[in-house]
Amino acid sequence: MDHIVPMPEGFRFAAHNAGFRYKERDDVALVVSDVPAAGAGVFTKNLFQAAPVTVAKENLAAGKPVRAVLINAGQANACTGTQGLANCRETLALVAAGIGVAPDEILPASTGVIGPQLKMDIWRKEAPAIAAKLGQSSPLDAAKAIMTTDGFPKIAWGSVEIQGREVKLVGMAKGAGMICPNMATMLGCVLCDAEVAPGDWQEALAAAVDASFNAVTVDGDTSTNDCVLALANGASGVKIATQDELAALGAAVNEICQALAYMIVEDAEGGTKIIRIHVVGAEDNMQAETAARAVGHSPLVKTAMFGRDANWGRIVAALGRSGAEFNPDAVNLAIGGVPVFTAGQPVEGDLDSLLAPHMRRGEIAIDVDLGGGGGEYLLLASDLTYDYVKINADYRS
Amino acid sequence: MDHIVPMPEGFRFAAHNAGFRYKERDDVALVVSDVPAAGAGVFTKNLFQAAPVTVAKENLAAGKPVRAVLINAGQANACTGTQGLANCRETLALVAAGIGVAPDEILPASTGVIGPQLKMDIWRKEAPAIAAKLGQSSPLDAAKAIMTTDGFPKIAWGSVEIQGREVKLVGMAKGAGMICPNMATMLGCVLCDAEVAPGDWQEALAAAVDASFNAVTVDGDTSTNDCVLALANGASGVKIATQDELAALGAAVNEICQALAYMIVEDAEGGTKIIRIHVVGAEDNMQAETAARAVGHSPLVKTAMFGRDANWGRIVAALGRSGAEFNPDAVNLAIGGVPVFTAGQPVEGDLDSLLAPHMRRGEIAIDVDLGGGGGEYLLLASDLTYDYVKINADYRS
Repeated sequence: MDHIVPMPEGFRFAAHNAGFRYKERDDVALVVSDVPAAGAGVFTKNLFQAAPVTVAKENLAAGKPVRAVLINAGQANACTGTQGLANCRETLALVAAGIGVAPDEILPASTGVIGPQLKMDIWRKEAPAIAAKLGQSSPLDAAKAIMTTDGFPKIAWGSVEIQGREVKLVGMAKGAGMICPNMATMLGCVLCDAEVAPGDWQEALAAAVDASFNAVTVDGDTSTNDCVLALANGASGVKIATQDELAALGAAVNEICQALAYMIVEDAEGGTKIIRIHVVGAEDNMQAETAARAVGHSPLVKTAMFGRDANWGRIVAALGRSGAEFNPDAVNLAIGGVPVFTAGQPVEGDLDSLLAPHMRRGEIAIDVDLGGGGGEYLLLASDLTYDYVKINADYRS
Repeated sequence: MDHIVPMPEGFRFAAHNAGFRYKERDDVALVVSDVPAAGAGVFTKNLFQAAPVTVAKENLAAGKPVRAVLINAGQANACTGTQGLANCRETLALVAAGIGVAPDEILPASTGVIGPQLKMDIWRKEAPAIAAKLGQSSPLDAAKAIMTTDGFPKIAWGSVEIQGREVKLVGMAKGAGMICPNMATMLGCVLCDAEVAPGDWQEALAAAVDASFNAVTVDGDTSTNDCVLALANGASGVKIATQDELAALGAAVNEICQALAYMIVEDAEGGTKIIRIHVVGAEDNMQAETAARAVGHSPLVKTAMFGRDANWGRIVAALGRSGAEFNPDAVNLAIGGVPVFTAGQPVEGDLDSLLAPHMRRGEIAIDVDLGGGGGEYLLLASDLTYDYVKINADYRS
């Protein structure tokens, strides 16, 4: 077991190679809190919701404390109907029996190929082994077990001092670009040893997810299985009592989610750059998001960034067709801090010279001021490269 | 003329293709303040000082206000003896006559090949043309005129609100790796429209240079011509009156210098990454610097970073031979925030997985805690690549 990542108190981990899809590596992760924990979850808005999403929502809605998170990689258990739901519940029962909790105290998540039913023969055979491994694995082992097409495991940790004591957090995520419409995109799990009211914990998670995982785009697809789950177990002995303390905890959760979301964009298939699109001056935040997403999803913008070409006309064009309402004559646009379009007019001069160092960097800032209200939005996008096309074109061959 | 870069008030620029070495582009830049300005300069510590370094120092030492900076690219006027000094002074006299200032009110700087005398025939012929262009060029034009082996011009700008009014600054620099021992490394020039006492201005510049240009390394060479010059002319109407105002101005100067220094490392020959080496816990800042430089200059560390290999043993080895005094059993080392060596012991576990995203980034953080006193130092270094070797190996062919 690794001892690199500092763990929050009162959590144990198991990672196991059950063989759902991957034969050479762990493909199931179990996290158990020694004591009942506040649970929270944020789920995909895709109309097709995978069975584990439905079950996790149900278990959270029951309002009981949560004891565990169970994640398998290789099979998404999505679009699997009532059989899929029954299978999902059976996996929880199988593992619950081994670790001495109730099945509905476990939150499930799955990632992998959409359509096929879970391989229940494997689940029935391997569930005791999964439970038996509890405490023998590290958070990093768990982060590796939930990978699908990921190039590297995604894990982040941190701590925050509250009431003079240290509250620790660890988060893990999986997710790269959609390699094809059959593979799920992203999962996340955040663990924390503070005690916090479930409603507050849900709000903290939702806010952090909104500002991080929901504010990244690789190729604009949203999967049936996207979810972020979070447990807060109180094992640190710190009980969140004030709004300030809640804000401090929320900031720590946000930092974890930001780091994980950044890694997801970094791990975009074939991606070479992170495009940091910040829109201000919109009528409201929603309009700012609309404008930012039009830029971040534009293949023309994304290929230009890959090619180190500060082709700002493509950015302006994407803004114009985004549906956001603004006065074109009031728009300002800067790339890497260099103004390229001000008050709706191109900036005269040798922009390429000024932009050269910025276009070479691994992170390129695109700052848009729509010149209107106080709405703003920050989106991280990947670039679009030969390799992305190659990976996704070759997949069918 | 470009109008992209906001200019401080009361400065005019000229960029001109005199033909000292470059036939197709400007190779001399002149900056003139409309009113007498406080001058400051920080110069190379190389024992061989180029003629313009000696003359600029003399002119500053006279304690008079400064009116202009004159920089030529292509000829370093270094190791040129008394003839070189006379030539340098003649260039100032030639240009001074054209712009109506005294020769000793101009600070000279040169960059280029060491050894040959300045081509005075060209200077005598072109000086009037240089002066005549004043006000027709932009700061960016000037930044381009002082390039030698640079891949892109280096310019940074900013502003700071003091006494409710805006003080503007612009800085430019040239410098990439030493392409060979015959080419000078770095020049910088910072312009500001605040009024500030010359002693304070010198201190602000020296502090900023120490934390920026002196805290970067491409290949560890220091040229005969390195210098950073700065003028503060008061044209904004803001007169720095308090320590707080001076600190605010100093921070702005520091920011400009940091941005330019970063670009110099980015533009390192063949470089692909910036290595941000932060040493803390040293007996004093000097020892921290010694340790940081041993790491930043190590070809073994620099090639490992290029190869995305978190070979921390090479970092530890560099620290050990650096000459800095510390207890090996107290040393902590992290790469990209991931602890790899703690209390003098290797961290057990799958470091490569945790380090993978960090080694892919354009900037890699190496954090060293020597476990002793309060000394610290931050150094930016480039990696060492096939291309660096190729460029420098091919040069002799």
